[in-house]
Amino acid sequence: MILKIFKIGGTILDEEENLNSFLKEFASISGPKILVHGGGKLATSMGKKMGIDEKYIDGRRITDSETLELVTMVYGGLINKNLVARLENLNCPAVGLCGADGSSIRAHKRPVGKVDFGWVGDLEPENCNSQLILTCLQEGFTPVFSPLSYDPQSGLLNTNADTITSVLGACLSKDYETEIFFCFDRIGVLDKNGELIPNLNESDIHQLIEDGTIRDGMLPKINNALNALKSGAKCVYVLGSDFYKYPVSESGTFYGTKLIL
Amino acid sequence: MILKIFKIGGTILDEEENLNSFLKEFASISGPKILVHGGGKLATSMGKKMGIDEKYIDGRRITDSETLELVTMVYGGLINKNLVARLENLNCPAVGLCGADGSSIRAHKRPVGKVDFGWVGDLEPENCNSQLILTCLQEGFTPVFSPLSYDPQSGLLNTNADTITSVLGACLSKDYETEIFFCFDRIGVLDKNGELIPNLNESDIHQLIEDGTIRDGMLPKINNALNALKSGAKCVYVLGSDFYKYPVSESGTFYGTKLIL
Repeated sequence: MILKIFKIGGTILDEEENLNSFLKEFASISGPKILVHGGGKLATSMGKKMGIDEKYIDGRRITDSETLELVTMVYGGLINKNLVARLENLNCPAVGLCGADGSSIRAHKRPVGKVDFGWVGDLEPENCNSQLILTCLQEGFTPVFSPLSYDPQSGLLNTNADTITSVLGACLSKDYETEIFFCFDRIGVLDKNGELIPNLNESDIHQLIEDGTIRDGMLPKINNALNALKSGAKCVYVLGSDFYKYPVSESGTFYGTKLIL
Repeated sequence: MILKIFKIGGTILDEEENLNSFLKEFASISGPKILVHGGGKLATSMGKKMGIDEKYIDGRRITDSETLELVTMVYGGLINKNLVARLENLNCPAVGLCGADGSSIRAHKRPVGKVDFGWVGDLEPENCNSQLILTCLQEGFTPVFSPLSYDPQSGLLNTNADTITSVLGACLSKDYETEIFFCFDRIGVLDKNGELIPNLNESDIHQLIEDGTIRDGMLPKINNALNALKSGAKCVYVLGSDFYKYPVSESGTFYGTKLIL
């Protein structure tokens, strides 16, 4: 059975019209599915209201105690439970989870090296417990995941939503044929001329990283997507958040970049 | 099969030692159980950080839009997901829910009368959907509920945690023999001399309300407790949050006030 996992981030979350349109489309998909969401601008604006500034060391974002509280509130509460309410209203029975629920996304606090990233989780796919997720899916509930992982030693930890998506795909590939859709603010991976690359395999990816075509924010996204594919996902896409508005190709692939092994 | 439902509020949530001790006890209870939590001082202190003042009209608390955002963050995210993480760490598999999850606690926005209470939910027990809760319980997961209900028209709504507990008890009494424990900052209902009243029936309650023994904050609590009992709960207690430290009576009742029909 096919399980579809969608990851959405700031581009959709911050724009009401896009979000509304995406959620309608998502709710209408039949069969088991999961939604993973990032944070968007809401954490930043709520942080400002609370006098919590974003903190960086050497350009890397740091999660100190008050930032962890902030993301637990905004990701785990405000965004997550509102998405659940909206899906329920679209006749899509949903359940809002984070990594602590049923120990579903286990992690350890990132070790302090040159940089102390603070309360950030590095995931442990081998310790993730998919029982709660499987139970919900089997009963027809759609899990909605906030990007928080769980470490028995440290408690909740801030974690990149793409990485959570990738690890969910890996863990659930034992029970489902997983298709993963990393939705973001471009139509997919673009070549040097700005044209969409419809298919990418691992060696293509290494070459595009080497020649600088894949860089910056795209780099971790593609690495997460590739990891998901190598960990057992049947099919992984990197595509625009409105990909469903475009026709599906003759070979049945969606409009975007499809990763192939 | 017996289902135990515990409600905890500010007294426990705000004091780390009490909370720790309670959670250990709660985690060790075998069989199906549910934890419902209130807000405590955290919502107030987070609100202050964000410049959101508590609002009252005629002494009644009002939930305006920014207060709803605040409680969704603090109740639905910060408190709820941290309780789940702590229970997981105590080997109690848990799942953090609010009324929107699986439409489990349905409500309508309170109609505007003399006072406009804002985004406050009046519960609709007949529309609550217990499927998600039952699924979680059957698979050994302990639901942890934040005091937010769900209205398809209005979305998330702020709701009294005692009322949510009472309605959960009523809905789940179809599938379980429910025992409800309203834990608060006294050892139970006290008589005029400050002595614990171990048993109370409905006519006792009416008399104690009439003569002013039950008043103020105790009034809605007792009414919720009584409603739960009249709606099918097998057994309802109003007791201290550390009731488990005291011996159980010869007849098997806990140290506190037991409501009887």
